[in-house]
Amino acid sequence: MNDCADIKKEALRNMRSLVIHEVGMRDGLQIEKQMVPLEIKKSWLEKLLDSGVQVLQIGSFVHPEKVPQMNTTDDLVSHFISLEDQNTLLSGLVLNERGLDRGLRCGVELFCMGVSASNTHSRKNTGMSTEEALERIMNMADTALAEKKRVQLSVQSAFGCGFEGVIPPERILYIIEEYLSRGFMDISLADTAGKADPRQAAKLIEGVYNLSETFNLTCHFHNTYGAGFANCLAAWDAGVSTFETAFGGLGGCPFTKTTGGNVCTEDLVNLFRRMEIPTAVDIGPLIKVTSEAADFFGREMSGFLYKTVPADER
Amino acid sequence: MNDCADIKKEALRNMRSLVIHEVGMRDGLQIEKQMVPLEIKKSWLEKLLDSGVQVLQIGSFVHPEKVPQMNTTDDLVSHFISLEDQNTLLSGLVLNERGLDRGLRCGVELFCMGVSASNTHSRKNTGMSTEEALERIMNMADTALAEKKRVQLSVQSAFGCGFEGVIPPERILYIIEEYLSRGFMDISLADTAGKADPRQAAKLIEGVYNLSETFNLTCHFHNTYGAGFANCLAAWDAGVSTFETAFGGLGGCPFTKTTGGNVCTEDLVNLFRRMEIPTAVDIGPLIKVTSEAADFFGREMSGFLYKTVPADER
Repeated sequence: MNDCADIKKEALRNMRSLVIHEVGMRDGLQIEKQMVPLEIKKSWLEKLLDSGVQVLQIGSFVHPEKVPQMNTTDDLVSHFISLEDQNTLLSGLVLNERGLDRGLRCGVELFCMGVSASNTHSRKNTGMSTEEALERIMNMADTALAEKKRVQLSVQSAFGCGFEGVIPPERILYIIEEYLSRGFMDISLADTAGKADPRQAAKLIEGVYNLSETFNLTCHFHNTYGAGFANCLAAWDAGVSTFETAFGGLGGCPFTKTTGGNVCTEDLVNLFRRMEIPTAVDIGPLIKVTSEAADFFGREMSGFLYKTVPADER
Repeated sequence: MNDCADIKKEALRNMRSLVIHEVGMRDGLQIEKQMVPLEIKKSWLEKLLDSGVQVLQIGSFVHPEKVPQMNTTDDLVSHFISLEDQNTLLSGLVLNERGLDRGLRCGVELFCMGVSASNTHSRKNTGMSTEEALERIMNMADTALAEKKRVQLSVQSAFGCGFEGVIPPERILYIIEEYLSRGFMDISLADTAGKADPRQAAKLIEGVYNLSETFNLTCHFHNTYGAGFANCLAAWDAGVSTFETAFGGLGGCPFTKTTGGNVCTEDLVNLFRRMEIPTAVDIGPLIKVTSEAADFFGREMSGFLYKTVPADER
């Protein structure tokens, strides 16, 4: 019986393919001072949909005065949710009840919310302790679930904190146990401060899977010290199939001390393809968006792959 | 007996520490158009020695008209070889018999030479086929050995070629067998075109260790698509302890179509330290050299770590 279960588990693991939750339009653009016009955002989102990413984050529901770049999220969700021919799950990041209401009104399919495992980071980011924030977002998540929405709950600073340093794994496991006990089965571990290393990541993920194997685990690594790919690969080997990444490697968290861009979507897909790990994501449209973003912002993106496309073909 | 050998092997593997062959002064500077004055090179080399890297490549013995930046190699070797208090092995890259003579005259301790596993790359680089180049450099290596020098022989384009694409592993293994059969025990696999991926690298290295386990294997990865760290980690897990890397991630090969910087020494040391893999190399002096090089060349280096040092402390 146990042997059989093991064989099945092994077979399932070998059947995995790389799944991308593209977060560049949120975790990338939110720190960009130069406003991207709505029509350009739309054209980038169209290309991101063309790439076949499985989940696409449209933006966050933050107060428009706090992050003006995100003031288009409602309109963009409304627009893309009305398209009949798209198979991608559209997600939005929600920070509070007001944002949740906005997300429900415009039709977000996957609500992303989370708490920081670091009390210091949590307070700086939300004004609440981890414990307070945890209770609050689980109540918000209940509301979304009651509306038949999908919800992904994250643990930020899961691999360490720019303020507190090492976060004991027990704190991360405690938060995940709370999520699981309330029935939330989509969980993301975020390396908010870019502190993860491959060994530590593998160990933490192993610990998480020891709690339960019947939920979806996503990892969101940053590339602060260039270890993004090595972390993704370690997480993949530990059983994680879904990664939150950003085209061009855009982004970083403005609220932490040490910061760095996201893992670059097209570079990660390219690397996994070279390792013959199956994925449904096309690189072409991603390179196109990254090249356009590089032109728009007038600077080089941190992603590697788009630079191999001759400038006049971008 | 076999069990005992396995236990011993495992124990030896667990006792390993990260060894750095710093090649920035050669593989980094050789493509820089802006000439670095001798005194600045000296001060960078002093800091690199301070960092405790185990092997330090001073430069290449190429014709000064072909690569003017390397016209200081002989003087630099003579200078640093005369210092009594340094424990680092000083290496130099040698491309032909004339370079070998120069290296022998100024006192290089480790001679690096190699052939490309790609015939196309070999012809473009040296005007000779792999087979012709192989015979030539092994004769040169014999001369260096006869002079009681250490020799490291490399296989360039070992993980793929910008011109030929995939290079069959048999070709790499053939070259290594030739090296081993002639008694050369220091061998380096170079990802000249930045084509390696972690799975392929691990598999190739496994194949190499199947030939013999009684030689020193070094890997030289580039960071073309950002996979440098993931490749180093895969190689480490496969048994490789020594890596050729460059401070700041300087460099790239000017003779291949797709190119990219080297793996950044201080970033790699930092990542391995975070994974609690022991190394004798200090990060501080490396960050200092990288910061000075960034100032000197007036541009950002690709390395991550030095950017975390405040500008006024660099």
